[in-house]
Amino acid sequence: VPRTADSPRGGLTYAAAGIDLDKRATLVENIRALTRADEKDNVLAGVGPFASLFSLAGYRDPVIGASVDSVGTKLRLAVLLERYEGVGIDIVNHCVNDVLTSGAQPLFFLDYIGSSELGESAKLELIRGMTRACDDANCVLIGGETADMPDIYAPGDFDLVGILIGACERSDLLDPSSIGEGDVLLGLPSNGLHTNGYSLVRRVFNVGCGGPVHDEQRRLQQVYTELGESLGEALLRPHRSYLAELKPVLNRLKALAHITGGGIAGNVARIVPKGLSGVIAKGSWPVLPVFDLIARTGKISNEEMYRVFNMGLGMVLVAAPRDAEALSRDLPEALRIGQVVSGQIRVELREV
Amino acid sequence: VPRTADSPRGGLTYAAAGIDLDKRATLVENIRALTRADEKDNVLAGVGPFASLFSLAGYRDPVIGASVDSVGTKLRLAVLLERYEGVGIDIVNHCVNDVLTSGAQPLFFLDYIGSSELGESAKLELIRGMTRACDDANCVLIGGETADMPDIYAPGDFDLVGILIGACERSDLLDPSSIGEGDVLLGLPSNGLHTNGYSLVRRVFNVGCGGPVHDEQRRLQQVYTELGESLGEALLRPHRSYLAELKPVLNRLKALAHITGGGIAGNVARIVPKGLSGVIAKGSWPVLPVFDLIARTGKISNEEMYRVFNMGLGMVLVAAPRDAEALSRDLPEALRIGQVVSGQIRVELREV
Repeated sequence: VPRTADSPRGGLTYAAAGIDLDKRATLVENIRALTRADEKDNVLAGVGPFASLFSLAGYRDPVIGASVDSVGTKLRLAVLLERYEGVGIDIVNHCVNDVLTSGAQPLFFLDYIGSSELGESAKLELIRGMTRACDDANCVLIGGETADMPDIYAPGDFDLVGILIGACERSDLLDPSSIGEGDVLLGLPSNGLHTNGYSLVRRVFNVGCGGPVHDEQRRLQQVYTELGESLGEALLRPHRSYLAELKPVLNRLKALAHITGGGIAGNVARIVPKGLSGVIAKGSWPVLPVFDLIARTGKISNEEMYRVFNMGLGMVLVAAPRDAEALSRDLPEALRIGQVVSGQIRVELREV
Repeated sequence: VPRTADSPRGGLTYAAAGIDLDKRATLVENIRALTRADEKDNVLAGVGPFASLFSLAGYRDPVIGASVDSVGTKLRLAVLLERYEGVGIDIVNHCVNDVLTSGAQPLFFLDYIGSSELGESAKLELIRGMTRACDDANCVLIGGETADMPDIYAPGDFDLVGILIGACERSDLLDPSSIGEGDVLLGLPSNGLHTNGYSLVRRVFNVGCGGPVHDEQRRLQQVYTELGESLGEALLRPHRSYLAELKPVLNRLKALAHITGGGIAGNVARIVPKGLSGVIAKGSWPVLPVFDLIARTGKISNEEMYRVFNMGLGMVLVAAPRDAEALSRDLPEALRIGQVVSGQIRVELREV
């Protein structure tokens, strides 16, 4: 006969096994209050039912754009500093940028929090961050799942996954296959690491690696002159959304590359058609000080840095030469970083 | 200066930190080959791009139904027996059933696999299971995210999240608010635990709790006469989909409750309107032997069993009395389990 675990009043309960169904019901009520999804336009069913429902009335020939992402191990730094709202913003903005590359605009968002012994206040902070970022993107947190997973997550640890559903008319889709020789590459600045490279950066600074908590916290609280802030502030800055800036100019773009895992070359390569090559000039945009600090501290090669991090560019835009000047005028932050030429290497980062 | 981790050739690399970008690119190619999403109708962009794109052409007044779910700690048993395809089926069918409760039908599915050191063959088995279940549901695995999360997941452990997007005409939505006194409750059988109650059942049988692997495996391999199979077979049986059976009769239903966490009462309560009460007669359907075995082995109270497990019912249907007979004829598996009366308790499970 197999052994059984702790058995209050002689019999096992779900609560004793780490799952409290009553607490969960309260949490769902609190999430519902935070998101106020049911009050939003087009929402037929928000947080609570088995399925969330969203009306797509008013489109002629709708295309749905969908993206699923997770924050990655940036979460470990959030846990260490008990700052949860920012990673809630991270996951929404990451998804918003991904969906935006298609030309679709955000409609609604769903989240997944898998955790073990993560407090209700932490969960609500996450939801608060997601709700805030959803409001900024004019979309709605319409539903989600909060899973208690004892034995998969360590106590207090969690994973955060987001799904953004957007839509646009089929005729408004961006079309990377229209990219041609002579097209211009523009870059929009990132505000930090966004959500990529944290498994490397955690090792570089030995933070969020499971060492003594106070030592790790102290290292995150250290202020670096070149950053003008603490390491923790720099590393936890939420992923920037490019929606507000790019929405008015989408019709003048051929394609967008969101610079995430794989770096500038890896992500621009995802949109450049065969037979063409995006040539990008290093030095045509400012590399953020945090990347210099990471490279120096971790003795990381320049090549590896560019493979892993966004190095200061969060989004790369492709436009026809005739549109480039007007785009630069409408997007003061955009920098001309390269162009498209014929060639077999999809993307080349050139030292200038 | 903070310490740094292992530094091959003097400098830290992402690969040494647990993230291999090249391996990842290969995995994406293999997933693309398995899903063949780009060949499917309505898919404008499948696995690979920043956003997946799906055409919703042909609807008059479309409503999108969305659900996000995870498999929960059933995953630990899959890891223990190295059987991954079944939990891939689980996550899709769980989502299919959730979306079905709204009246929407599956269009496309996205997955998220968060893991650390989970082998490529395991990941592809998961995708294979999901693809198989998507094919059965006439929907397409259109995209996903595979995240390497060293330090959040233990080596070989993972979390599996799924998102199903469905749609229907607004006029085809099921309407739980139309439920009235005298309506009939029908139940469709489950084929096991589906995906709920595993944190409890793991403790009951002391499996997937982190003990010595061979001991835990041996306990799962034990064959029980009352089950007619091993414990592992019974516990890993994939969550059943009710789509094929219910699709032809959706227009004769008022509402559906998918019996997941919270049990029969907890989930039927989610659809019964205020002022009404669903009265369900225990004994009007056969409780599966696996639940008797769990209750006996864990000395779990009857009340707790019904709160945590589906107890043999996977889906509860609500229909007007005039439709009940025809439904029973068209759904040979459906059993009449109760009815709706006026009352303040949303759901009452009565001993008969």
